[in-house]
Amino acid sequence: MKKKITIIGAGLAGSLLAVILAKKGFKVDVFERRPDMRKESISAGRSINLALSDRGIEALKLAGIDDFVLKQVIPMKGRLIHSVDGTKKIQPYSGRDKEYINSVSRGGLNIALMNKAEEYPNINFYFNQRVLKIDYNKKTFKVKNENSKEIQELVFNHLIGTDGAGSVVRLSYQTGGVKRFNFSQDFLSHGYKELAIPPGPDNEFQAESNVLHIWPRHDFMMIALPNLDKSFTVTLFNRFDGNTGFDSLDTNEKVEDFFNKYFPDAVSVMPNIIDDWHENPTSSLATVKCFPWAIEDKALIFGDASHAVVPFYGQGMNASFEDCRVFSELLDEYDNEIDWEELFDKFQNLRKENTDAIADLAIQNYAEMRSHVANPVFQIKRQVEMELESKYEDFSSKYSLVTFRDEIPYSKAKKLGELQDDYLMKICSNLGSAEEIDYDLVYTELKKIEESLD
Amino acid sequence: MKKKITIIGAGLAGSLLAVILAKKGFKVDVFERRPDMRKESISAGRSINLALSDRGIEALKLAGIDDFVLKQVIPMKGRLIHSVDGTKKIQPYSGRDKEYINSVSRGGLNIALMNKAEEYPNINFYFNQRVLKIDYNKKTFKVKNENSKEIQELVFNHLIGTDGAGSVVRLSYQTGGVKRFNFSQDFLSHGYKELAIPPGPDNEFQAESNVLHIWPRHDFMMIALPNLDKSFTVTLFNRFDGNTGFDSLDTNEKVEDFFNKYFPDAVSVMPNIIDDWHENPTSSLATVKCFPWAIEDKALIFGDASHAVVPFYGQGMNASFEDCRVFSELLDEYDNEIDWEELFDKFQNLRKENTDAIADLAIQNYAEMRSHVANPVFQIKRQVEMELESKYEDFSSKYSLVTFRDEIPYSKAKKLGELQDDYLMKICSNLGSAEEIDYDLVYTELKKIEESLD
Repeated sequence: MKKKITIIGAGLAGSLLAVILAKKGFKVDVFERRPDMRKESISAGRSINLALSDRGIEALKLAGIDDFVLKQVIPMKGRLIHSVDGTKKIQPYSGRDKEYINSVSRGGLNIALMNKAEEYPNINFYFNQRVLKIDYNKKTFKVKNENSKEIQELVFNHLIGTDGAGSVVRLSYQTGGVKRFNFSQDFLSHGYKELAIPPGPDNEFQAESNVLHIWPRHDFMMIALPNLDKSFTVTLFNRFDGNTGFDSLDTNEKVEDFFNKYFPDAVSVMPNIIDDWHENPTSSLATVKCFPWAIEDKALIFGDASHAVVPFYGQGMNASFEDCRVFSELLDEYDNEIDWEELFDKFQNLRKENTDAIADLAIQNYAEMRSHVANPVFQIKRQVEMELESKYEDFSSKYSLVTFRDEIPYSKAKKLGELQDDYLMKICSNLGSAEEIDYDLVYTELKKIEESLD
Repeated sequence: MKKKITIIGAGLAGSLLAVILAKKGFKVDVFERRPDMRKESISAGRSINLALSDRGIEALKLAGIDDFVLKQVIPMKGRLIHSVDGTKKIQPYSGRDKEYINSVSRGGLNIALMNKAEEYPNINFYFNQRVLKIDYNKKTFKVKNENSKEIQELVFNHLIGTDGAGSVVRLSYQTGGVKRFNFSQDFLSHGYKELAIPPGPDNEFQAESNVLHIWPRHDFMMIALPNLDKSFTVTLFNRFDGNTGFDSLDTNEKVEDFFNKYFPDAVSVMPNIIDDWHENPTSSLATVKCFPWAIEDKALIFGDASHAVVPFYGQGMNASFEDCRVFSELLDEYDNEIDWEELFDKFQNLRKENTDAIADLAIQNYAEMRSHVANPVFQIKRQVEMELESKYEDFSSKYSLVTFRDEIPYSKAKKLGELQDDYLMKICSNLGSAEEIDYDLVYTELKKIEESLD
């Protein structure tokens, strides 16, 4: 049996990492502040479903759990854009049929990963354990049992913090663990609230099921993702302040008026809006960036703990899973003796520019989702991209580069995607429709852009 | 007697603010973590002297302490640039004689402010008091006496955190005090170490005294500011890593070689380099930005606590003193009943863009000081600026706008200064010398640029 690794946080990244490490023969202890979600229902207000795509799936393969998970997802082939007047337009995610994203239950996936982990005798989960303090000199940490209130001091060899956007491990870096810790947390002026479209009377989906629904309203937007139980999880993204912001929607009447005015077609299938509105919290959205992620060979932060992103590219979970894949591959480069300090350092230097890139892409995509998708030139551009993807196997739009091309790092996907976007938007702004395009010419130009990057 | 105000931190900003508030009739309690610096010597490693300029002086006037302080400063009329070959070039700060900056002792100024404060019976200082926890709902805070270890819980009406770049008050905002707290701390890859040029054998200055000395060496630099005791405080700014970085200078021989190679003219008057090198810490340099600064009418952070900047524009203290002036003026807008929530909110909204501007200017000025000052085009541009300032009373270079024009907010000084710089650098890059300039023409163009901003 190899060395013991201590993981803080049994969320998606921590659970997947535990499985990957256990498969390689490490002993893994996982400490989780919350109760075991398989025994108690998890708290409301976190996103109920997520979009799983290629980068995430590649990592799940390493844990041997991809097939199992992919049986419990709902493919979403494109965005279905809802106008206020009730008209709907589909915008496929790709011009190739095999490229789509998958709606998956956050809780279900987390449970599947924990169940998989517990197949390994060398993994132990410790629930209700709140980390209070970490001493990187002594390599000890204090945990408090949230039930018994008992406090224990434990030792670690290598501690990996996968404890999410509000990471306690990261806070310990900031408050003394790291000498010069670069750190930023930036909140959007917009937050979100989850609502629902329940299944219909005959237990059927009450809207198209194989799409991601978007109601873009410029200053705010609503989206809906399908669930296995034929419901949709609906999320309203909205400003906190301003005329139509969350803070101003402070009576049932105002909430009803707001939905009737801006989302009339959705209201008819959302009978519980008012109850949901009151029961579910209004949550905030932040981008977290920091560096370094590693303290010598002692500690590493990972996933949302080191790079929380806003949800608008559907890549938060996928980026964290990709962390697991990259970490696994770096670990495989060692035969016997692992140089943990070198490993942690390689990892953070490989990942940092890529997680910065997806963080920035996610911010940019908010404007795309709530506004640009309704712009005629953008719509033509997406049609042109679909046509290009269908005609030329080796062309991918920015969205496809980020979402489906797991062999291309985020930073390159961002650079190439932005150059492509500039070029295509320029062309499309002079067009009346996508049919006027000389595709071979455009494709040749796009290939030149790609080569200019190499 | 008016309400009680609680100030956390008796540094430069906290002490000045205490005087200003006491003059207006408020009762002021000031809690300071360190001992009374008038009784015990302060810890080494913080900057020993600072550059006081017009924004700072304007604020000192409100405390009635400007005359007293200005008797204990040493005017610095310009930068004296030292080349490796020993040649020196003066670059005046302004084309007008009355515009210069002042070297002042940090400790002396702080003591003067505390002494002034204690002339007011309504100010109380509490030293050795470490703030542990602030409860913004109950409006209480816990302090620990660092000597007796006694912990007290105290109440506050309005708490103002002036506790510096490592602010505990700000950390309490981040860890629960404020719901969506935007925050960043960015460390430079460069740090600094203080050294000294002692007075000569006949107690004389061993270098020109009315200048700020700069040894620009591109990747690093050294500066020296004069002190009243005829010594100079010397500061080496250098990378941590790399061939010539701090971390590599790990033997006395390497340190000596480094100074002999890059600062030969300084070495001859720095007999204690090696002792100073070991005694003084190598400190880091960070920019801190955050928002909001206020919690309702309960708390406000202020000075370095909310906007720590790197030292390269000589404006950190001046910006914090300007905070005091702006706060004082806003307070004067109320006759009787003060709306503290409105006051705090007005203050943060007025100041934020200006402290962001000086933070960015300070980062940019590092490149200017360690590199551009040695660039021939930059040198011509500075000559042109001097000539313009001497010919035209209403022209100020970017440096002068920031440093001497306290009636112009930093954000405007930055915008205007950058436009002027772009224009002047373009002109000067085509010139062999400053004499080829048609000043009336250039002045007219510069005025157009200024008008375009209004």
